[in-house]
Amino acid sequence: MAGSTRLIPLGGLGEVGKNMMVVESDDGIVVIDAGLSFPRDEHLGVDLVLPDFSYLQDHESDIRAVVLTHGHEDHVGALPYLLREVRVPEIWATGLTLGLVKSKLDEHGLLKDAELIEAVPEDGPTQLGPYTAEFVRMAHSIPDAVAVVLDTPGGRIVHTGDYKIDHTPVDGFRTDLGALADLGNRGVDLLLGDSTNAERPGVTQSERTVGEVFRQIIPQRNGRILIASFASNVHRVQQAIDVALEDGRKVCLIGRSLRKNVNIARNLGYIDVPEDLLVKPDVLPELRPDETMILCTGSQGEPMSALTRMAFNDHQHVQIEEGDTVIISAKPVPGNELRVHDTINRLAKSGAEVLHQEIAPVHVSGHGHAEELRTILAVLRPRNVMPVHGEFRMLAAHARLARDAGVDANHIVLAENGSVVELANGRAELVGAVESGATFVDGLGVGDVQDVALRDRRHLSEDGVLIVVVTVGSQNGREIAAPEVIARGFGEPEASLLDEARDEAERTIEELLGQNVTELKLLQEHIHDAVGRLIRERTGRRPMILPVVLEV
Amino acid sequence: MAGSTRLIPLGGLGEVGKNMMVVESDDGIVVIDAGLSFPRDEHLGVDLVLPDFSYLQDHESDIRAVVLTHGHEDHVGALPYLLREVRVPEIWATGLTLGLVKSKLDEHGLLKDAELIEAVPEDGPTQLGPYTAEFVRMAHSIPDAVAVVLDTPGGRIVHTGDYKIDHTPVDGFRTDLGALADLGNRGVDLLLGDSTNAERPGVTQSERTVGEVFRQIIPQRNGRILIASFASNVHRVQQAIDVALEDGRKVCLIGRSLRKNVNIARNLGYIDVPEDLLVKPDVLPELRPDETMILCTGSQGEPMSALTRMAFNDHQHVQIEEGDTVIISAKPVPGNELRVHDTINRLAKSGAEVLHQEIAPVHVSGHGHAEELRTILAVLRPRNVMPVHGEFRMLAAHARLARDAGVDANHIVLAENGSVVELANGRAELVGAVESGATFVDGLGVGDVQDVALRDRRHLSEDGVLIVVVTVGSQNGREIAAPEVIARGFGEPEASLLDEARDEAERTIEELLGQNVTELKLLQEHIHDAVGRLIRERTGRRPMILPVVLEV
Repeated sequence: MAGSTRLIPLGGLGEVGKNMMVVESDDGIVVIDAGLSFPRDEHLGVDLVLPDFSYLQDHESDIRAVVLTHGHEDHVGALPYLLREVRVPEIWATGLTLGLVKSKLDEHGLLKDAELIEAVPEDGPTQLGPYTAEFVRMAHSIPDAVAVVLDTPGGRIVHTGDYKIDHTPVDGFRTDLGALADLGNRGVDLLLGDSTNAERPGVTQSERTVGEVFRQIIPQRNGRILIASFASNVHRVQQAIDVALEDGRKVCLIGRSLRKNVNIARNLGYIDVPEDLLVKPDVLPELRPDETMILCTGSQGEPMSALTRMAFNDHQHVQIEEGDTVIISAKPVPGNELRVHDTINRLAKSGAEVLHQEIAPVHVSGHGHAEELRTILAVLRPRNVMPVHGEFRMLAAHARLARDAGVDANHIVLAENGSVVELANGRAELVGAVESGATFVDGLGVGDVQDVALRDRRHLSEDGVLIVVVTVGSQNGREIAAPEVIARGFGEPEASLLDEARDEAERTIEELLGQNVTELKLLQEHIHDAVGRLIRERTGRRPMILPVVLEV
Repeated sequence: MAGSTRLIPLGGLGEVGKNMMVVESDDGIVVIDAGLSFPRDEHLGVDLVLPDFSYLQDHESDIRAVVLTHGHEDHVGALPYLLREVRVPEIWATGLTLGLVKSKLDEHGLLKDAELIEAVPEDGPTQLGPYTAEFVRMAHSIPDAVAVVLDTPGGRIVHTGDYKIDHTPVDGFRTDLGALADLGNRGVDLLLGDSTNAERPGVTQSERTVGEVFRQIIPQRNGRILIASFASNVHRVQQAIDVALEDGRKVCLIGRSLRKNVNIARNLGYIDVPEDLLVKPDVLPELRPDETMILCTGSQGEPMSALTRMAFNDHQHVQIEEGDTVIISAKPVPGNELRVHDTINRLAKSGAEVLHQEIAPVHVSGHGHAEELRTILAVLRPRNVMPVHGEFRMLAAHARLARDAGVDANHIVLAENGSVVELANGRAELVGAVESGATFVDGLGVGDVQDVALRDRRHLSEDGVLIVVVTVGSQNGREIAAPEVIARGFGEPEASLLDEARDEAERTIEELLGQNVTELKLLQEHIHDAVGRLIRERTGRRPMILPVVLEV
């Protein structure tokens, strides 16, 4: 009997972001991707969200390698945090991904801890930890994305990474349908496929269409052109630069992450920028508007980013002027819509015309739509399918596509983060679950902010806080001074309401002390309930009530 | 010399929502619309947002009437709050709007305070307060929407209300281009035009196309059909009911506002529902899936709504099952995207197939796109244009359309809430500003939650709160008991960190008292700074530090 392989997604299923897949057999563990996600509204005050690494910590000695499908934050961003927790002997990735990761590990002071190995799809099969591995080029919104193929004891697994089927990619590296077809002919036991756009009918537009739109818009304008896009979207930057060159514009890169990524991509030969095309920000005032192009960060309306600063008239080098055309060449990540709209409004108020994806074709997705997923299913003809990368609705849509493609319903696995899926004897099925979830990074703390803190922050944010301080004599069990009541974030309470709260606290404490109740916890509880009730009756609100009873 | 008229928008400019326009001359004030808006993320804990009524309070004796263009909350929702603040002699609206408003005023116990007068477009010119008024039918996503035409001392003003140019509206009441053309021929001095979709190219689809999509989807399904839409979208409900009738399905209405609106619309003859088509929720278990249609509220993922409860398996009557098809026939209002996605994911997890506007044509907008706005501009040929109803980017796009239509740039007014725009001698221009802004409704309080409270709530929500209580003897100026430190929403501080904070507070207070500093404010300030600095250094966080110094 053949062996078996266990697939354990630690992130990216039932959500968009923090992608991480454990591929485990008796020979050891290979982890595909180590991504982070950005906090949602309810993650009040949280900076970053990481996968829960507990399972990997518990099996540290089995870890042979991490392999990264591409350089986006939701696939590589958790790597520094992972390396702080567990030892990873080898990190595999293609050239650009490796370049981005090197710079990231360097910033975290972790570069010495890991052996970085370049994955080269054209080199054919290689040994990756305990498995024979192949890499297949996939088109995506960052160069050098790959699918990872692992021959494991349980069977051959194809993990697509993120992809679209772009027949005219900017760098010429198409999704390698030939290599995928060859894999299909050799036999694929399990497909782990990107589901992000599985719900959307048809196909995504080619990245090249955005360049064509740039080419239509930009030469018509006499004013300055500003383009905001994701810092990692090297193809988008290349296309903007190509049009600038044709239209006689100099290009100024503004935004730390954009400059960093373009530098790395240039050094590694992934982007072609004539040296004399680029100008520094302090040269901008010397240029005519019609010879100016500014590429910048801030396409998500991030508070401290270049475009947001410009919009709010707070940028050191660039002030938005009448006649400027701003192209926001990205789509707001769900949850960022209002911030992006605010930015657009401020830019419009300063006199700019703003073109964004709701009203002009200045962005395309990097994820294939339903017909592209069908193509991959048809080419690979996998025995089993496990949709990955997406909210449940997307995974479910991908499962429907697999069923339509002829995959037996019993061979389609809708897993969750923490699911254990066993691949053995040509069949993948759910066999258990391990600890999984989210680890919050807040300031310097990793993992110490938990649900309780978030619940408290939520409560505080709803109606603020009312603090009631009461002093009790430790000797005589009598009240020492009149209670203090302090309100924050509560509204503008009339002085009389705070007086009432004070009286209520005093009445409560006197009554309890009169009954010889002196246990601090009990006193606090009664004050909490009495003052809370009063405030609710008077205002309809439920601030957090924090009674502090001091023995003096 | 002719007279002049002042237009003062108190809401709806630079934002989507809380629409309100003051039309003032020496003869008195007519207010067009009295809308509310829903709080944004940063309005922590706020329930509703109203226009600032200060200007109307200051000019109460001049108010002659409020006229409502249609029955959406962002046009009528603030009316009860307005009536509590100022006396309004007359309220004008068309039949359905009046029906909805009556029910609303009744709930607030305000029905007796106002004289409600039905506006009937077909009746021709009428006297509305000091002005001659006409009403023109406009198609929108609620029946009985009208444009309001006022002949004022400064000239003829056309306020479009919200509209689209739907040539095949469900109720047959088209946007009355004939009446608008007649107005254009007679001369329009100022157009106040809906700008919501001014950025979007082309035209909106007709409401009827959604009915056609229902007709394609629903008869193909053997399972139950659930449709969530805005409770006020009477045409959408009518079309769903028509398809249910054709497909042999019974219809169950779930959600208080939906039942209320359908009742009002039925009683007034705006919707046609055979009595035996409707069933109560307790009859649902007796129906086969293929004879069931459930219409419900919750298209915005509102926490307590019918669809959200069903999605989270918390509804009294309806449990989502494998085979159900859920149609979310609405677009998320910006800011609601994540909640709607959550709802979709939960529905999909329970086995439903969910069709929503991102992936299927199950919704159309009620606001005309650019080409429709151009048509209105061409038909009315206004001397002056003041874009209303929309964020600045939308107003600016509308201004561009007006310029393209041949309106002189000096006759296009980009105003803000609180702007005073004077119309006199055929020219509209900005002449000043009055107090304006937002009034927050939080619980029972109207207006007492101000920016300070929101800033505090924001701060509390970021990193929580640390309360430091210190007691000082009023006699001897010495510390009485060791400081107390309490953290909420801060994370899980190690006990040692709280100890450190306590020590830091103690050190600070002892040092100050040693220097004979006993002023409470000063003591608090120093404790605030010292503890804040410590916490920031140790954790990278900035919780709100609340020092409480008690004299006992």
